[in-house]
Amino acid sequence: MIVGVLGGGQLGRMLALAGYPLGLRFRFLDPSPEAPAGHLAPCLTGNYDDQEALESFTSGLSVVTYEFENVPASSVGFLAERLPVYPPPEALEVAQDRLSEKTLFRKLGIPVPPFAPIDTPEDLQSALERIGLPAVLKTRRFGYDGKGQVVLHRPEDAAPALHALGGRNLILEGFVAFEREVSILAARGRSGATVFYPLVENQHAGGILRISLAPAPNLTPELQAQAQDYAARVLEALDYVGVLAIELFQREGQLLANEMAPRVHNSGHWTIEGAETSQFENHLRAVQGLPLGSTAARGHAAMLNLIGTTPEPAAVLAVPNAHLHLYGKSPRPGRKLGHVTLRADDPASLEAHLTELRRLIP
Amino acid sequence: MIVGVLGGGQLGRMLALAGYPLGLRFRFLDPSPEAPAGHLAPCLTGNYDDQEALESFTSGLSVVTYEFENVPASSVGFLAERLPVYPPPEALEVAQDRLSEKTLFRKLGIPVPPFAPIDTPEDLQSALERIGLPAVLKTRRFGYDGKGQVVLHRPEDAAPALHALGGRNLILEGFVAFEREVSILAARGRSGATVFYPLVENQHAGGILRISLAPAPNLTPELQAQAQDYAARVLEALDYVGVLAIELFQREGQLLANEMAPRVHNSGHWTIEGAETSQFENHLRAVQGLPLGSTAARGHAAMLNLIGTTPEPAAVLAVPNAHLHLYGKSPRPGRKLGHVTLRADDPASLEAHLTELRRLIP
Repeated sequence: MIVGVLGGGQLGRMLALAGYPLGLRFRFLDPSPEAPAGHLAPCLTGNYDDQEALESFTSGLSVVTYEFENVPASSVGFLAERLPVYPPPEALEVAQDRLSEKTLFRKLGIPVPPFAPIDTPEDLQSALERIGLPAVLKTRRFGYDGKGQVVLHRPEDAAPALHALGGRNLILEGFVAFEREVSILAARGRSGATVFYPLVENQHAGGILRISLAPAPNLTPELQAQAQDYAARVLEALDYVGVLAIELFQREGQLLANEMAPRVHNSGHWTIEGAETSQFENHLRAVQGLPLGSTAARGHAAMLNLIGTTPEPAAVLAVPNAHLHLYGKSPRPGRKLGHVTLRADDPASLEAHLTELRRLIP
Repeated sequence: MIVGVLGGGQLGRMLALAGYPLGLRFRFLDPSPEAPAGHLAPCLTGNYDDQEALESFTSGLSVVTYEFENVPASSVGFLAERLPVYPPPEALEVAQDRLSEKTLFRKLGIPVPPFAPIDTPEDLQSALERIGLPAVLKTRRFGYDGKGQVVLHRPEDAAPALHALGGRNLILEGFVAFEREVSILAARGRSGATVFYPLVENQHAGGILRISLAPAPNLTPELQAQAQDYAARVLEALDYVGVLAIELFQREGQLLANEMAPRVHNSGHWTIEGAETSQFENHLRAVQGLPLGSTAARGHAAMLNLIGTTPEPAAVLAVPNAHLHLYGKSPRPGRKLGHVTLRADDPASLEAHLTELRRLIP
């Protein structure tokens, strides 16, 4: 059983680490010859739209999945004609475009901030009148880690933002004065069976995820149920198979969907040590048609991203119950080089060790 | 940092799976071109006494360790002249020879069954007079999984057993009517810091480990302290670095040392899901000079070996909290092909799911 994975970054690497014990083998396709997954599995170097690379990639695979959602739809179509591709290509297409994503959420009755497609200065003008300020202008595609978006505070911010983002294929979204950002991860198997991880609280800085707390502090059964209900609607609508992440804003006990990722997600890394079954293993179980594993949290966890630089491994590992994950990438400002998951049996000891760990991680 | 590992079996494979997240890379040396570690790391094919293979193996390594203890002492000597080798070669030498092992235990005040070296029929005759029957005649070297040993019940069993085992380089041991077999795993770092896992109860059949229960049922602090004390004496005496396993017989609340393994051990596989830090990670932390991780058990675990055949993965994964580990080996009678670890928060649910799992695993 060889699982093909489009993208050989850290998510692919962690998929392989979770999948070898299941008896799976892997083949990756990535444009970079230095893709982190290449340390531990065969990794073809090639662009995602390179027909020849795709041909050699598919040979002998039992299933294809991806760890990166900006794979061209045509490439996914090419693969889907030849073998099972999970999550389904439709999910990828929806997630690639903020407008389709928000439109799907709204169609499914999932609350979203007000939004409007923007392709001209007139679109922006009328959308601003309807949505009001502050608002966020975003590219519909290829945004990640806070890239491809500008917050508009005053009317005169509109024109330069429109220009900076290319003038078209944009979306304007009402700015949500949220109390916190949370995410829900769910896995749906080929049989339709679905499991949900506990909601996670995510703290960003500079548009990049810094810390996830799992389960989210002060998580109520009502909030969990709300998030699960929304995720279930998306999973059903897309006949989804695999792990899906939905990022949400929490405001006054209500959740608004922000965006979704049709893949394993940074805010689910805590599950490696913090849950009975990791998101990586459950994603593979799902795409292989195997029963899904328990998503129960084992105590409390905090996941801290290592961005741009990495602390001394010895210093991190000296913190009780700290688990280090380095991705084998060369350092570069703003680059996700690894993460540390801190696990504890109770919130108080989590807090104590988190204080220690924060001293090591800027 | 490339860690060199002598032996590319399942233990090596699980070392690599634990080591990639620490930012380590691996190179294995194994006589078989189908060694399971070769799926996920470079694996040189060569005999352990092949000078040329050893030369290419060592190039660029930061440290060497082994997952297999029957590496020729001369090869380990060759490596130790060139780079750090952990556990220390002396530990390997002691563990390769049941007589040296028992002699060391006795020297350190660790209770052992009565034993005597056997190289002639006269040796055997006088040893039997002293030790009595039943007794076990074993080869001093290369015994594993119950191979290379014969139980003597009657005086007339002696001559054929002596003949069957080659007549010399043997050891006679008094037969211990033990209540159960347990093992202790300990890890000692380069700095001398030492951690101990909870004692594990091991159930064998046909000389092969079938099930480990961790922590051992009815484990008392006194028994744990006794085992830790014995392990600590061995670790200190050998200036040991890495994970050490000692198998012991329990009889009337007392422990007698049976044998030791200077490496990660089958009875420690439960630590992957059942302990805060796995034996594999702690072995790597030790040999790399990193701080050791917590050995605390997370609930209760049972580890079942998959021997000769493997059940359907889907059936295993349908059992709540069952974690499957396949080694990527081709089936062969008596061969360890994988294991399943069952984890539970309390002994009652462990027992319930274990009953389910036993139906799948002969």
